[in-house]
Amino acid sequence: MEKLFVIKIGGNIIDDESRLSIFLKDFADINEKKLLVHGGGKLATKLSAQLGIEQKLVDGRRITDAATLKIVTMVYAGYINKNIVAGLQAHHCNAMGICGTDGNTIIAHKRNHPLVDYGFVGDIDRVNSGLLKSLLDQNIAIVFAPITHDQQGNLLNTNADTIAQEIARGMSAEYDVSLIYSFEKSGVLLDANDDSTVINEITAAYYQQLKAKEKIFAGMIPKLDNAFVALNSGVKKVIIGKAEELNQLISRKAGTAIINE
Amino acid sequence: MEKLFVIKIGGNIIDDESRLSIFLKDFADINEKKLLVHGGGKLATKLSAQLGIEQKLVDGRRITDAATLKIVTMVYAGYINKNIVAGLQAHHCNAMGICGTDGNTIIAHKRNHPLVDYGFVGDIDRVNSGLLKSLLDQNIAIVFAPITHDQQGNLLNTNADTIAQEIARGMSAEYDVSLIYSFEKSGVLLDANDDSTVINEITAAYYQQLKAKEKIFAGMIPKLDNAFVALNSGVKKVIIGKAEELNQLISRKAGTAIINE
Repeated sequence: MEKLFVIKIGGNIIDDESRLSIFLKDFADINEKKLLVHGGGKLATKLSAQLGIEQKLVDGRRITDAATLKIVTMVYAGYINKNIVAGLQAHHCNAMGICGTDGNTIIAHKRNHPLVDYGFVGDIDRVNSGLLKSLLDQNIAIVFAPITHDQQGNLLNTNADTIAQEIARGMSAEYDVSLIYSFEKSGVLLDANDDSTVINEITAAYYQQLKAKEKIFAGMIPKLDNAFVALNSGVKKVIIGKAEELNQLISRKAGTAIINE
Repeated sequence: MEKLFVIKIGGNIIDDESRLSIFLKDFADINEKKLLVHGGGKLATKLSAQLGIEQKLVDGRRITDAATLKIVTMVYAGYINKNIVAGLQAHHCNAMGICGTDGNTIIAHKRNHPLVDYGFVGDIDRVNSGLLKSLLDQNIAIVFAPITHDQQGNLLNTNADTIAQEIARGMSAEYDVSLIYSFEKSGVLLDANDDSTVINEITAAYYQQLKAKEKIFAGMIPKLDNAFVALNSGVKKVIIGKAEELNQLISRKAGTAIINE
């Protein structure tokens, strides 16, 4: 099977023009099929503040009301998505920027929660891989904004880590998929404050041990949970590491590999 | 050759939720291949005002500075584009929202003008029809936001009427293309204030006569100029009329047809 890299880039990188530029150059240089999922960065929060839209929290959980949905649609699917695509085109990488409503690629539903109404937050039902495959087969890199839809006309704000995982799984029948979570740290760290303590490989058993010893930084747990779901559903490799080391992550000279055994 | 409808929808319709909804339902029901180009509406102006970004005018001409480019990218390629696509998906019309940097579909350059620096305003160099055709051939309706790029990493604000015309021309080697400019009026009017004075057909000769008698409303001249450029470059039909009468425009029971002889 042909290789496909599904790469998630974190918000902190998007906020930093020079780091983003290094990343986009490396991404453009990948010879295999590739799909980039980007998060949001601080621009949406900043724009909300400028417009006097307050961030709604219910029991400490962030809620996407209609005003916030409008902001994230503008910022994620508009500003960030199109600037990443234009940046890749400048590196001679033909890219196409879409979100889940485009081509009906990701269908979701408003989150059902017994206690909290999260507003316009989407939980994913399924990924339609056909159109994505047709674009990849035309050697187009796909750039995916973390917005999905419910097929009833509602756009939904959706976690980018989960989108990357679902796309990776959804494409694994067609491609030999590697899922890469790239962000500002060098990998999964034994000491969250020491970038030299990168764990080279994590199996499911080792992950349980680390969690039991509270050695896993809380923010890393959803990524690792997503990683194991992906591995158990046909994705070949999951790698977590620094966005500026994309080439080394791919060649396994840097970062943390999440492996089955 | 297979038919393709390239349909431009004006900003006044986008601003009016109920009129937009009627239009999208009719657009979804078109059985032939179809591509929608949307303008901006008032949301970008409103958002600029809320953020304290002043509209720059030089010699009465609107300038797109960096702050304004950011706004129009967010509003046109983000908010409006994705909401139109989600609306079409709700009508079971599989649509895909893109702009000119996506798939390198429209290449432009910053406007060269001896006296005025228009900022990030794009004049079109060429339309790459291949990817558009591949999407249309998968029965995907394309929804196009009026943003292009220069292949150097710059997004460019580009007139939506001109984008519709250039796409119509660019696709005319592959399809029997009808270009429809739909907006709030019933067609080209002899009396701009009387919607019952629709001109049924306009030839190039008649257009010159009307212009000489100052019978053409100034705002209509760029649309008509675009229409004749399209007709002279392989587009089969150009029709101008009311967005809520899309079916009647297509069946030629309403609107103004721009014809060669």
